[in-house]
Amino acid sequence: MALSPYQQLEQEFRRLHAFRGALSLLRWDAAVMMPRGSADVRGEQLAALETEHHALLTTPKVARLLERAEAGASQLDDWPLANLREMRRQRDHAIATPPSLIARLAKATSRAEVFWVEARKAGNFKLFAPHLEEVVHLVRDKAALLGQARALAPYDALVDVFTPGISAADIDTIFTALSRKLPGLINSAIEQQAQSPPSTPVGKFTVARQRQLSVEVMKALGFPFDRGRLDESEHPFTEGVPGDIRITTRFDQSDPFTGLLGAVHETGHAMYDLGLPQQWRDQPVGRDRGLALEESQSLLFEMNLCRSRAFVKYLRPLLEKHLQVSGAEWTEDNLYRHLIRVRRSLIRMDADELTYPVHIMLRYELEKKILEGELPVADLPEAWNANLEQRLGVRPTSDVDGCLQDIHWAVGHFGYFPSYALGAVIAAQLNEALRAAQPSLDEEIGAGQFGGVMDWLRDNVHGIGARLPVKELIKEATGKPLSAAAYLRYLEAKYLSA
Amino acid sequence: MALSPYQQLEQEFRRLHAFRGALSLLRWDAAVMMPRGSADVRGEQLAALETEHHALLTTPKVARLLERAEAGASQLDDWPLANLREMRRQRDHAIATPPSLIARLAKATSRAEVFWVEARKAGNFKLFAPHLEEVVHLVRDKAALLGQARALAPYDALVDVFTPGISAADIDTIFTALSRKLPGLINSAIEQQAQSPPSTPVGKFTVARQRQLSVEVMKALGFPFDRGRLDESEHPFTEGVPGDIRITTRFDQSDPFTGLLGAVHETGHAMYDLGLPQQWRDQPVGRDRGLALEESQSLLFEMNLCRSRAFVKYLRPLLEKHLQVSGAEWTEDNLYRHLIRVRRSLIRMDADELTYPVHIMLRYELEKKILEGELPVADLPEAWNANLEQRLGVRPTSDVDGCLQDIHWAVGHFGYFPSYALGAVIAAQLNEALRAAQPSLDEEIGAGQFGGVMDWLRDNVHGIGARLPVKELIKEATGKPLSAAAYLRYLEAKYLSA
Repeated sequence: MALSPYQQLEQEFRRLHAFRGALSLLRWDAAVMMPRGSADVRGEQLAALETEHHALLTTPKVARLLERAEAGASQLDDWPLANLREMRRQRDHAIATPPSLIARLAKATSRAEVFWVEARKAGNFKLFAPHLEEVVHLVRDKAALLGQARALAPYDALVDVFTPGISAADIDTIFTALSRKLPGLINSAIEQQAQSPPSTPVGKFTVARQRQLSVEVMKALGFPFDRGRLDESEHPFTEGVPGDIRITTRFDQSDPFTGLLGAVHETGHAMYDLGLPQQWRDQPVGRDRGLALEESQSLLFEMNLCRSRAFVKYLRPLLEKHLQVSGAEWTEDNLYRHLIRVRRSLIRMDADELTYPVHIMLRYELEKKILEGELPVADLPEAWNANLEQRLGVRPTSDVDGCLQDIHWAVGHFGYFPSYALGAVIAAQLNEALRAAQPSLDEEIGAGQFGGVMDWLRDNVHGIGARLPVKELIKEATGKPLSAAAYLRYLEAKYLSA
Repeated sequence: MALSPYQQLEQEFRRLHAFRGALSLLRWDAAVMMPRGSADVRGEQLAALETEHHALLTTPKVARLLERAEAGASQLDDWPLANLREMRRQRDHAIATPPSLIARLAKATSRAEVFWVEARKAGNFKLFAPHLEEVVHLVRDKAALLGQARALAPYDALVDVFTPGISAADIDTIFTALSRKLPGLINSAIEQQAQSPPSTPVGKFTVARQRQLSVEVMKALGFPFDRGRLDESEHPFTEGVPGDIRITTRFDQSDPFTGLLGAVHETGHAMYDLGLPQQWRDQPVGRDRGLALEESQSLLFEMNLCRSRAFVKYLRPLLEKHLQVSGAEWTEDNLYRHLIRVRRSLIRMDADELTYPVHIMLRYELEKKILEGELPVADLPEAWNANLEQRLGVRPTSDVDGCLQDIHWAVGHFGYFPSYALGAVIAAQLNEALRAAQPSLDEEIGAGQFGGVMDWLRDNVHGIGARLPVKELIKEATGKPLSAAAYLRYLEAKYLSA
């Protein structure tokens, strides 16, 4: 029997899925295993496969099949219909940006990245500025084209690439609520913590022992080591495909929590990917629902579940077992207070849970202004420093600790930053619903039992894949529309209780 | 300016090169890094990329371009002309076997592999026989089609896949010469060695120390660790692309020579791949000249250069340094005699240099008879055992040590085995020419200096890529036509001197 247009599309996207899996492994290998001198060769392989992936997605054949499948969409069930919608979305994105613009962006960003590194070394933003300018120029073109293709405002179209279904208006509503409450919350938390500051656990811990500790915790969380790996890299990340997940962390010999919580964070991503609907795993609808939701899963694990008194109760004996630690700074109470310590810092990546969204809101505000032409690139350093001082009361003395700290803009990632804070907001809303559904959760976490958490997430988040838009998914999972309310409740309860 | 048909072909094959690089990394990862439970996912990725590779190679566009480029071939220089010839060869191979036959072979061989494992476990050839029969059936069809496409006899067409330019007639000439001399040589060598047998060096050596030893030797051989890796796997192999070579070995804690010489063998492959003409590295003419030549490089290193008194002189202090060994069995003389010990054994993979070709000649004789229908699959065990007894004077008591020992036929590799022995023959002929050109070679090897070897190989073998057919390449490199003469001289000098 001949395949229907929709079924033929499934075949096409199955091939694309295999390409993405191969690309992911090539990237993982480049960061974890590849010899340093092989970067050029790998770059060529990645570029060739990406080009081929793009070509397969933009053939006239796929266009025709999409039109014919959409004409018969009324006969499709829920999942295939959502799958068709996601196929369309992927193709619209791919076709919107012409290969010439993609090529120019690739060139401009790889040059900008080089000069970003140079500028950081020299502590001189001016070395980077003209290259960032060029990137901004091209990203503006891309945003306009994407916007036309998806019937969205340019900035919304950029956000849509990373977190489909979220607009700048949604972000504004949430960030306005956060801006209103966070400064006061941060002040109060810092004051309260200053009254009896925790002592910092110190020591020297081998990577081998820290690895054992991480592996034991990851196993408790449910990470399947027969279908995934833990390795080390400069920054923690998750690559691979469901069925072969590769996560990394970075171990710091003088701080056992960096490596462990990095692994926990990435395990959150991994469990999401592993829990995606198995039946749809090689189709667009079987993929994760974008960056904000991915980040909600990693932050739910790292922040909501594991930077908690319950988790510390489970963790303390493991620290003793693997790291042979003891003493006053290793008590449950001190450890917990150490793990939720709030500090006004300059660097986003070092920021604690409470001040982190401030760093994001700053970037969101500035990247919109840059794209809209309201803020010239040359004025970025001053705008950055003033904004951080106003928001957090600290001011970088060098651009290395200011607007040169993140690589995102250099590589053309505009519309990306908001997903970090949205992830935290979504995580808190899920956390609230999860705890309402499972009142004994803390006891389970204290005993190292995460089966209940996983079941709930699989039913309400992981197993949905990309069947629903983000906001609907959250509404169905939590019974409430996406908002900052649960997040603010959570932060207040955590940081203003004694 | 518009690209010529030939230039357009170069673009097409550049894409194919990137695919092959990605496929190679996926295989390397599967053998070295991949979690066990991810085999299915990886299998899907490999199949999808292989299918895509095949599709790109067999498009009507490539066919048209080949015809147009061939029509204008008189205007091409030496290298592009050879490149065009290799493009044609690749496409003819790809188009000769229809996708339906490829699919049936893939199914039959994966089933045969499963039952090969089962038959080995049960020590029962009958479990494997029907599945081998099916594979033979399909390989016969494939050989006929390949033969038609390449104007070759069916078996020659199979050999041509692995070692282009070598026919069964070439193999027959060489193997006849070997069959005449080897039995006597083996007898005499075993008798001579029995008069004062070496003592076996014993001890327990950690993998970490053995690895250090291998790395030091590999560095001396010129292996560039900034563009390659050494890892461990069940059987040693070489994957990757020039610019990112991945070799593996297997360390045996009670025998330091298995791991070291495995690494040396694979380094021979790696140095060949790394020395291929850089300018043509993403084109067919920039690839290695097939399996026999690949094997000549690994065997030249392992056998001709490193199982030698000169190499043992260099090695002994390294064994002391890394493995802290001393005593009578670790003297230069004893170590050398240990490394060239000749034994009549049942298993090809365990065979020494002198008896190894006997195992190959047996397989060559039997696989031709099976394909030609002269030897029914059911009669293979008896034919095998009788043949080995006649050739080597030992007879397997179980098929596990007989015709079930190799996986090659199960996975459809007919025409593959001869390349192992041809590799040894070519290695010896190259070794003779190399030593004539560099009379002080042994002194250099004794001092751990391999620069001269590498220069000669780069000029005469590696840098040629696939520009010449095998026999011409050997003629140009050694000044003599390919023959068994140098090999027999080498074996006599090595095994019949005191």
